[in-house]
Amino acid sequence: MEELKKYVSVKDEDRFYHQGAVELLVFNFLLILTILTIWLFKNHRFRFLHETGGAMLYGLVMGLIIRYATKASDVESGTVYECEKLTSGPPTLLINITNQVYEYQYKREISHHNVNGHQGNAMLQKMTFDLSIFFNILLPPIIFHAGYSLKKRHFFRNLGSILTYAFLGTAISCIVIGLITYGFVKAMVHIGQLKGWEFHFTDCLFFGSLMSATDPVTVLAIFHELHVDTDLYTLLFGESVLNDAVAIVLTYSISIYSPKENPNAFDAAAFFQSVGNFLGIFAGSFAMGSSYAVVTALISFTHLTKFTKLCEFPMLETGLFFLLSWSAFLSAEAAGLTGIVAVLFCGVTQAHYTYNNLSPDSKMRTKQLFEFMNFLAENVIFCYMGLALFTFQNHIFNPLFIFGGFVAVFVARACNIYPLSFLLNLGRKQKIPRNFQHMMMFSGLRGAIAFALAIRDTESQPKQMMFTTALLIVFFTVWVFGGGTTPMLTWLQIRVGVDPDEDLKAEATSQSASNLDKNTTKAESAWLFRIWYGFDHKYLKPILTHTGPPLTTTLPEWCNPVARLLTSPSAYGDQLKDDDTDYIINNDELTENYESSAHIPVQDRTGSTQATGKEDIHEGDLGLGGYKLQLEHTAGQPQINSLA
Amino acid sequence: MEELKKYVSVKDEDRFYHQGAVELLVFNFLLILTILTIWLFKNHRFRFLHETGGAMLYGLVMGLIIRYATKASDVESGTVYECEKLTSGPPTLLINITNQVYEYQYKREISHHNVNGHQGNAMLQKMTFDLSIFFNILLPPIIFHAGYSLKKRHFFRNLGSILTYAFLGTAISCIVIGLITYGFVKAMVHIGQLKGWEFHFTDCLFFGSLMSATDPVTVLAIFHELHVDTDLYTLLFGESVLNDAVAIVLTYSISIYSPKENPNAFDAAAFFQSVGNFLGIFAGSFAMGSSYAVVTALISFTHLTKFTKLCEFPMLETGLFFLLSWSAFLSAEAAGLTGIVAVLFCGVTQAHYTYNNLSPDSKMRTKQLFEFMNFLAENVIFCYMGLALFTFQNHIFNPLFIFGGFVAVFVARACNIYPLSFLLNLGRKQKIPRNFQHMMMFSGLRGAIAFALAIRDTESQPKQMMFTTALLIVFFTVWVFGGGTTPMLTWLQIRVGVDPDEDLKAEATSQSASNLDKNTTKAESAWLFRIWYGFDHKYLKPILTHTGPPLTTTLPEWCNPVARLLTSPSAYGDQLKDDDTDYIINNDELTENYESSAHIPVQDRTGSTQATGKEDIHEGDLGLGGYKLQLEHTAGQPQINSLA
Repeated sequence: MEELKKYVSVKDEDRFYHQGAVELLVFNFLLILTILTIWLFKNHRFRFLHETGGAMLYGLVMGLIIRYATKASDVESGTVYECEKLTSGPPTLLINITNQVYEYQYKREISHHNVNGHQGNAMLQKMTFDLSIFFNILLPPIIFHAGYSLKKRHFFRNLGSILTYAFLGTAISCIVIGLITYGFVKAMVHIGQLKGWEFHFTDCLFFGSLMSATDPVTVLAIFHELHVDTDLYTLLFGESVLNDAVAIVLTYSISIYSPKENPNAFDAAAFFQSVGNFLGIFAGSFAMGSSYAVVTALISFTHLTKFTKLCEFPMLETGLFFLLSWSAFLSAEAAGLTGIVAVLFCGVTQAHYTYNNLSPDSKMRTKQLFEFMNFLAENVIFCYMGLALFTFQNHIFNPLFIFGGFVAVFVARACNIYPLSFLLNLGRKQKIPRNFQHMMMFSGLRGAIAFALAIRDTESQPKQMMFTTALLIVFFTVWVFGGGTTPMLTWLQIRVGVDPDEDLKAEATSQSASNLDKNTTKAESAWLFRIWYGFDHKYLKPILTHTGPPLTTTLPEWCNPVARLLTSPSAYGDQLKDDDTDYIINNDELTENYESSAHIPVQDRTGSTQATGKEDIHEGDLGLGGYKLQLEHTAGQPQINSLA
Repeated sequence: MEELKKYVSVKDEDRFYHQGAVELLVFNFLLILTILTIWLFKNHRFRFLHETGGAMLYGLVMGLIIRYATKASDVESGTVYECEKLTSGPPTLLINITNQVYEYQYKREISHHNVNGHQGNAMLQKMTFDLSIFFNILLPPIIFHAGYSLKKRHFFRNLGSILTYAFLGTAISCIVIGLITYGFVKAMVHIGQLKGWEFHFTDCLFFGSLMSATDPVTVLAIFHELHVDTDLYTLLFGESVLNDAVAIVLTYSISIYSPKENPNAFDAAAFFQSVGNFLGIFAGSFAMGSSYAVVTALISFTHLTKFTKLCEFPMLETGLFFLLSWSAFLSAEAAGLTGIVAVLFCGVTQAHYTYNNLSPDSKMRTKQLFEFMNFLAENVIFCYMGLALFTFQNHIFNPLFIFGGFVAVFVARACNIYPLSFLLNLGRKQKIPRNFQHMMMFSGLRGAIAFALAIRDTESQPKQMMFTTALLIVFFTVWVFGGGTTPMLTWLQIRVGVDPDEDLKAEATSQSASNLDKNTTKAESAWLFRIWYGFDHKYLKPILTHTGPPLTTTLPEWCNPVARLLTSPSAYGDQLKDDDTDYIINNDELTENYESSAHIPVQDRTGSTQATGKEDIHEGDLGLGGYKLQLEHTAGQPQINSLA
């Protein structure tokens, strides 16, 4: 085939350890630089570069250096060897080279057109780390943290809107992006750019679905720092978290959509199968995630008489919490479901139930642990994205497709936000004002999930072109939109400096700052919320946590023996009141875990009821038959429930 | 060569993600099981199985299952293919198999005699995870935690003894084990068991050095739980931590010992080169580790007027602390030094300087983070050790060598502890009693480091036999000695239930419980300690932390301009007193970070001076020329420094 080449000897096994160390050191170095830069920026109150943007920038520079500074020193490979004896690639290959046996591990299948692209630069190869690390180790803590730190109260108040944006919005976005890029692809075919490529409408839809995952981590960080209006924050946060889940499952469903005949024609059977897949995978992942959380809640709740509670061993408790949450992700992946969706709902459920059972020590440990892991993983991922622009070997930069991609993404975002906001405002009593809509439109950043979905499959040429385009869109949105958040907030006259605790109370006294319609407010999707809340408060909370009324009072009388068995002994005593207060405190404490300032949650809660005057469901308003202590608890606060 | 074989298709790339998930899930499952078991055991106050022992047991069972339950389903490989075109193994190999290109990654070189041992069981292959993960990710947090949680005061009080055990003891242990196993090897050669093997005395010394790393994690956990005498605890902890470092560098020095001519003859030049290597690597790693810690201390201490301090951003601070500490390890590895030694001394230095500069939030975060990482990593490693017995492919069980190994390890431990204790007792005023010596002898468990050193090189047959033997010794010592700790403590009548805070105070009032010689106590190595302490207190502490006297008072007058520049502005004000009290609190708080009970450090500290009546150097006794506040600070406490 080709002449023999001399390769760097790889005899010294130690070299490999050291190389592993060098790679990690490069990442460490980039992260240290990022942290120092951010510190500098924070000192000067520069808000145009968030740490994720910084990490990406440094990654980019490092990628450039690795690409062009280390190239000369390495030998070029790219030689393909024949092996007629094999019919398929085995996981491990033993090769006899000059009387010495070497073991090789299967890495991947390569299309012929990618072979020449291989640079054989060892450093470059090493820096493009294993995708399984990316998916199994870096992503789960970020997603879990998002679920675990969800501002539950605000989230549920806006549940209807969030679900609409997440499900309907993602579907719209996917279809619009798909259609626009398909138009561009047709144009490219027309001018003869894509000769010999297979590029179907499903590929465009695939691109559409992966580009629909928004990741406004930068925006939300700035919102948080500036204390932007909580409702806007919640809408954006809720939307982005859920639409990641939707986009991931959608992408998977589209990638396994296989029409029988003409791949461009519509195949109803295959389409409905994909829809079925979507629903099945989503529901399955949801169930997997929540059930792990429920198991954790049950274990941490165990109150067998002979047993000391797990919460007396904070380390074991934290360990178990961590491992079970991670297992939710891994089990879902292993079962062919979507781990990210599972771990998201696991996080939400853990925060809702298990968190209440943890010891104070573990509460803080878990919060801080996941916060830290989120911080690190996020920066590593953004750093890696920066690196990928130069270290990924098979980029296909097609200006027309890139232009098409950008157009499609912005149009799709507009088609998602404005029409849906209009529809939602028909039903919502508390309208989503125009400036909020513009801000949501502007906050459609693409980040880790879009990148992750794009890099997962880069085998064919269309997929490589999509990956390149996705990467550029991520860069642009994170830097430009992320950096433009503060000016945009000013320009749109969105209220900042809202103390989350004072937020809604302030709204009641000074109506000038915000143009929300407050007098006719009524929690949207209140009926859905009410049903769920009642069930949760009456049955699930008492079974899974120490809070809520004793089951004996909520279950029908004939269930009493079972109820007594399931109820925590402590739920009967005078601990009741404390528990509930505790719950409220925890509830707020958890959701505001970035805050260091002290706050008075009970007052806040009542304050919110005062302020909006809406039928905000009160801890204890529902299903509290024989639960008289609750009244005492809220009695101290003035009640101005205007509509209730 | 051989006929074609059908292999499992590896086309579906997703399969690989899922498999990564399955592996991790297996480990998670084992760890969850371990935690639940330990919880159960703690409830019943069983102390015969520590979590590490439990993790190892479950790993063993899982290894058994993977080995024998999944074997049938997999295809057997072990076929060696010829490739005449290559002269050396390239890092990446592209192979054309039935017109499809596959990429293979270099894994390792295999000796011919190991080829047949390969089972080709994919699950088995996957479970024997990458050694670079083991070394770069799992080991550093354990070692760092050991350094970070060192009980500094007790450690320095016993510094002389600890250094003697660690350096001299490890050397003795290495030589004794080497000699005894060499005897056994000679016998094995005599009866014809090792035909065709190359087995030199240096190989035996290699085995001796790796088996000299003691890891009494189980014993120390039980000591801690039972509150065993602090001096015994410190001696064992200090010895094991330092002797790991010594053993690692020793092993490396021996492995690169290369006599020019006859490998069995003594080559003075090569020997001294090895000694030089040892000293160079040890000193280099020490310097690397401490300098990273000093950099961290300086960054966290920065007090430029324009800058807000880093400690106002606890997340950035924790992140930087974590990354710089890990970088110490990685840099040392990348530079060809010993990362574990570097990260150990980095931990000690971080605890000594940086810890004082951290915000209260970060103090807790870092402590809890490393405690948690230590917990997880330790259990993963022990779990992996259990697995390795069945998943490692090339075990060589040689009963005679195993017997020899056991004998050698016990004899060497005895030759280390008893003679050295005797010598130390000649110099020590506070003797090491016989029952302490027996307990130290008994606590010579082998663990993670011995395993890590043994698995690092398993290419030749002698090394494989050593690995197998080392693994069995680890199992035996962890289970039998670890489990026997509590009975042994009772049998040796060693005092338990000592409150660390009350410890030395109690000693003064009731002399019955311990047979330490108290009236003639004088801190051993006091002179060494004094010199270091004075320098540290006068110059290093003021430069690197907020504590200690202002540099202007400790440096000669002509240095005043420099001193003023380097001294923290806060060191001049009335904050001084608080700072110093703070330091003392931190000092104790850190060293007792497993304790949850409240304690009164100032009293404790004075208590200790009262109790032992030794020349324990007081915070403020040294070099405090113009530092009058210090006197006020200690004036409130009764001073009974009998000898000072």
